[in-house]
Amino acid sequence: MKKIEVCFTPSLIDLYNVEKKVVVVVDILRATSCMTTAMANGVKSIIPVATIEECFSLRKKGFLAAAERDGKMADGFDLGNSPFSYMDKSLKGKTIAVTTTNGTLAITKSKKAAQVIVGSFLNQSVVANYLINQPNDVIILCAGWKGKMNIEDTLFAGALVDAVKDEFTFEEDATLIAQSLYNVAKDDIAGFVAKSSHVKRLNKLNIHKDIEFCLQPDIYPVIPMLKDDVLVAMEFDYEYVIKNDNA
Amino acid sequence: MKKIEVCFTPSLIDLYNVEKKVVVVVDILRATSCMTTAMANGVKSIIPVATIEECFSLRKKGFLAAAERDGKMADGFDLGNSPFSYMDKSLKGKTIAVTTTNGTLAITKSKKAAQVIVGSFLNQSVVANYLINQPNDVIILCAGWKGKMNIEDTLFAGALVDAVKDEFTFEEDATLIAQSLYNVAKDDIAGFVAKSSHVKRLNKLNIHKDIEFCLQPDIYPVIPMLKDDVLVAMEFDYEYVIKNDNA
Repeated sequence: MKKIEVCFTPSLIDLYNVEKKVVVVVDILRATSCMTTAMANGVKSIIPVATIEECFSLRKKGFLAAAERDGKMADGFDLGNSPFSYMDKSLKGKTIAVTTTNGTLAITKSKKAAQVIVGSFLNQSVVANYLINQPNDVIILCAGWKGKMNIEDTLFAGALVDAVKDEFTFEEDATLIAQSLYNVAKDDIAGFVAKSSHVKRLNKLNIHKDIEFCLQPDIYPVIPMLKDDVLVAMEFDYEYVIKNDNA
Repeated sequence: MKKIEVCFTPSLIDLYNVEKKVVVVVDILRATSCMTTAMANGVKSIIPVATIEECFSLRKKGFLAAAERDGKMADGFDLGNSPFSYMDKSLKGKTIAVTTTNGTLAITKSKKAAQVIVGSFLNQSVVANYLINQPNDVIILCAGWKGKMNIEDTLFAGALVDAVKDEFTFEEDATLIAQSLYNVAKDDIAGFVAKSSHVKRLNKLNIHKDIEFCLQPDIYPVIPMLKDDVLVAMEFDYEYVIKNDNA
């Protein structure tokens, strides 16, 4: 049976062997929710970069560019980190360079994996179905907050483990902790997430609507995946799309 | 108000500022449970060392020495990592050099703290009372397992946070997660810990009795504390002992 593990922060990813595995990168508030939203709304590709400088230099080359630090849109960029800003029709078919405090680091730390995909509540079931139908072991890599674990990514990791539990083995304590926490919180995810330090930080920035949006399950049947260091939407074969529609 | 935080593994301790804080080192199975048991049974002091080599060289100098790696007693030492081996009357007044897979690393990583103390279920209330009655912020440092978090240390961290919650602020997600997990598990700590990967590993080594022993709350009113790089029993003033007896 395939194995699934949860890594709570990119600071710990070196303790895991990502080779030959699928890494699901998770940054619920808000990087991976934005990436999912962008792909669902027709953005062609996203270039994740680690630093503001790299992101700015891609902007100078003519790309649209999005940069967030400490929960705020950085000065001099086209887009920030609100999922609503990725719904604009003018973005259809475009490529966007993105850097965020935690999310893009998680992606750049996963490049040795067999495959890197992007998960969020917004595409939860389509990701779960994909993991079940592919052959590799899986690591769910939470972006966390500045090296530490956070509640919202842990809850999503737990939700994903719970959704695939019949098809995977999972023995590591971190994985069991994520699943336990999800099972405590699942009837009131928003209430539970409201306790998190990140949400308290973000609430100060008046983004209740963003948070509410990012916690909705299954509104977008897309999976952003890394291909040659750029995120593009995964193409599903016919059979797979049918399975997902029936889920 | 004082602040309390939980760090789930020594791999993340560099993200915390331990200076001017009390660090409570936790390695429930079994290093800090053994240290608590040893002090309660009259061992005079414990020298925590990081490596088997250092431990062996102290043994050559005439100290009793205890070494554990991967849950087993290492060859050529006097004691292993079972709390029962620290109850022997012949150990009274002795100094023991100790190295363990995870626990001693947590101690050596905390040396910049204002104070380092040892916590376990066995001395839970006396530690909680001490934290309430001293003036500094607190970090609970879980030893985890080979760099990753584990269930039993997380549950104890949650129990300790819960016990002092009226006297401390705690806002970090890791701290909230530990407390939530403890509140789910508290009516059946043993059942919850039985799920952990470490316990599965240890069960293979036939140490059910050790595990059962280490999960007992409040059987020893002692606090091992680091003093000049050596663990000794904290001395309480009269008032404090009374408070603890009434707890």
